[in-house]
Amino acid sequence: MAYAESEITARLADYVVSARPGDLPDTVRHEALRSFFNIVGCTIGGARHEIVDLADKTLGAFAGPQQATLFARGRKADILHASLINAFASSIYSFDDTHAQAVVHPSGPVAAAVLALAEMRAVSGEDLLAAFALGVELECRLCKAVSVPPAKGSMAWSGTGIAGGFGAVAAAGKLLKLDTERMRWAMGIALSQASGFRAMHGSMQASMMPAQGAPVGLRAAIMAERGFTASPVALEGKYGFLSVFCETPDLDALAGGLGTQFELLRNTYKPYPCGIVIHPIIDACLQLRCEKGISAGNIARVDIQASPGTMALCNNRNPKDELQAHVSLHHWVAVAFIRGTARIQDMDTETAVKDPALMAFQSKVEAVLNPAVAADGTELAVTLTDGTRHICKIEHGIGSALNPMSDADLERKFVDMSEPVIGVARTRELVTKSWGIGTLVDAGELSRASA
Amino acid sequence: MAYAESEITARLADYVVSARPGDLPDTVRHEALRSFFNIVGCTIGGARHEIVDLADKTLGAFAGPQQATLFARGRKADILHASLINAFASSIYSFDDTHAQAVVHPSGPVAAAVLALAEMRAVSGEDLLAAFALGVELECRLCKAVSVPPAKGSMAWSGTGIAGGFGAVAAAGKLLKLDTERMRWAMGIALSQASGFRAMHGSMQASMMPAQGAPVGLRAAIMAERGFTASPVALEGKYGFLSVFCETPDLDALAGGLGTQFELLRNTYKPYPCGIVIHPIIDACLQLRCEKGISAGNIARVDIQASPGTMALCNNRNPKDELQAHVSLHHWVAVAFIRGTARIQDMDTETAVKDPALMAFQSKVEAVLNPAVAADGTELAVTLTDGTRHICKIEHGIGSALNPMSDADLERKFVDMSEPVIGVARTRELVTKSWGIGTLVDAGELSRASA
Repeated sequence: MAYAESEITARLADYVVSARPGDLPDTVRHEALRSFFNIVGCTIGGARHEIVDLADKTLGAFAGPQQATLFARGRKADILHASLINAFASSIYSFDDTHAQAVVHPSGPVAAAVLALAEMRAVSGEDLLAAFALGVELECRLCKAVSVPPAKGSMAWSGTGIAGGFGAVAAAGKLLKLDTERMRWAMGIALSQASGFRAMHGSMQASMMPAQGAPVGLRAAIMAERGFTASPVALEGKYGFLSVFCETPDLDALAGGLGTQFELLRNTYKPYPCGIVIHPIIDACLQLRCEKGISAGNIARVDIQASPGTMALCNNRNPKDELQAHVSLHHWVAVAFIRGTARIQDMDTETAVKDPALMAFQSKVEAVLNPAVAADGTELAVTLTDGTRHICKIEHGIGSALNPMSDADLERKFVDMSEPVIGVARTRELVTKSWGIGTLVDAGELSRASA
Repeated sequence: MAYAESEITARLADYVVSARPGDLPDTVRHEALRSFFNIVGCTIGGARHEIVDLADKTLGAFAGPQQATLFARGRKADILHASLINAFASSIYSFDDTHAQAVVHPSGPVAAAVLALAEMRAVSGEDLLAAFALGVELECRLCKAVSVPPAKGSMAWSGTGIAGGFGAVAAAGKLLKLDTERMRWAMGIALSQASGFRAMHGSMQASMMPAQGAPVGLRAAIMAERGFTASPVALEGKYGFLSVFCETPDLDALAGGLGTQFELLRNTYKPYPCGIVIHPIIDACLQLRCEKGISAGNIARVDIQASPGTMALCNNRNPKDELQAHVSLHHWVAVAFIRGTARIQDMDTETAVKDPALMAFQSKVEAVLNPAVAADGTELAVTLTDGTRHICKIEHGIGSALNPMSDADLERKFVDMSEPVIGVARTRELVTKSWGIGTLVDAGELSRASA
């Protein structure tokens, strides 16, 4: 490594402070745009979820001036509250992005922070996108450095919980044009508020832990801008972040190859709003339905060879509510064959989950363990009532690292999430503005268009 | 232990939910009152500190409706912001309370949370004091359970940072009359935001980490009241608080003897606003000055036998600013002999620190290591210009566990802190209302009187 271990915070701060939008390779800029586009869609898609309502109404009683837009909620609030609720909405369906190695969903806290800031300060779309890319990059690096081998870390921490504020503060600090000294303070303030453990999964607080990264990072950047100090060596210092969050951190993953190697390129996007290990099964169903013209009414049975992870997490027939449907492969096989879809509206109400046609179909679905099947694959056989049998083998489901969603896939996902919330015309406008964020003179335009 | 390890969160929640003010032994109620009284004085004393100004002005731009008083700052803000700034003020001089075993300053976050809540909901002083006692009790228990042997924990965590929100949520949840299910959610929400590590010490963020406990706990209680869920086993659950914050927690310290044994009784109060290992030295100076009628002008030299801790942390002659003066024994020996005091105003400006008389006197002060001297003791010898020599030996400085500050000491400390900030008459009113908090029909009266 070309740097001393004692200079890690300084190196990362220097990199963010000095990076110019043009320094990012085209592939990185485009992947950042895809991450940004995806998370805007997720934010709109989750904006009216009842749990988001509950959080906004409860915490809105303490919110400040109308500085930034709450996406698709028809009102504004102070930038800290707005960024919290927007980040919360972006992950409420677990439909956001995931780094292919570290279990971190990097875009939510970073996007919410920079979008809120762009309504308070003059920020160009080009600068916003570059700041977003840098924030996501640092967040992925930090999470990887404390959780992916050769690092020895604890599975118990919430990856986005402990790294999200770091991504948000890097991005917000970049937009505020902090110098290196203040960027280091800002990083220190945010890192000292890193929190979250996985015992919360399955509860409403699960999505709140990563969402906190947005206001934590935004606040830290603004405080440092005003001269509020923190340790300048918050990562590597004695009793610092790395010492408490990891037994043996991977320092090279954290600070090696800055500007030439990009973890952002390992970001992936989910095509369906359910447990990621169900995804290849849905792919197989939709492919057979389309290519073979199979009608659900003609299906006698569906036999699935599933990975160990799929069997452990998602072999759950006849779910009773949204949370259970999220991890039921039977539910999604029924949805895919009957409706030809796999969307939020296929699970987000009790009516949707308990649709008698879906419930009946699930009795025809059997999954068996095949240890040779990878988590992103499946082998699925459909037997029709006339005895015909069709088989579909998926090696790498759509959205996995080796079979990424195309830009067109991402746009369909955006439209599917957004139209039920803000309608066709405004969805079209948001799609255009989101793909074109890099060309907006005033990046705040995007958030305002979502109101 | 009379409970299963799998029931720790439930046990603690049950205890807080069912405890009545009258269940607390008189000794506990009185120590709670002393803790409360002390922290109100600390809050007023720190209210106009320039770093508190900076935090309030910066974050005030995002604050909400005028719901609760910012102590001695002439304005109100939403309860989350008010509780943050009040808790921040209470620890800005490191003049707050300390548990005698765990390194936790328990009262700040708890008091700030209940005082803010008492301005929004109808709360009697008796209920407020009982809720405060329960919050402090649980916070001390949690910090002890993860940091004091036989527990094996990391020195790196900020004790108040990771336990403060738990104290605040227990107290706030008690005032909101949460049932056990919601109290468990509330505790889970707060625990999943526990954060802070000691690398921040020496920076402004050092006092912000513990202060965050106030809004974190308050917000968690209010969210749970409205039905926002979290893991009901946040402490002991798989991937829960205890698993991430401690290698081997002391479960008996956490949940043993609830209602019969009280960690609150181990709370201590600092008589002087400086490093606690300087305290016995100040005691010796003030005692000699008073009892022997020694005038600073007649002193030729001062020889101090100091503990290893004192020598390591505080053997610093001629400090240049407040942060350095905080840990300079030479500074405080000069202050004590010349002014007969050891107050905030003896260190909180550059003028106070660089007073030529103080600087000159420090050249007469010599400290030498004596490994036999305990951290709460000293042996100090004064040689006068006429050759007379006086010796004073302190076994346990005032404020240590074995020589606690009396109620009268606490009142003098309060007055010394408060008068320069809000004047004599209002200090008198606050002293009366603070000692009498348990009898106020409307506990919000106290905060309003501090405005």
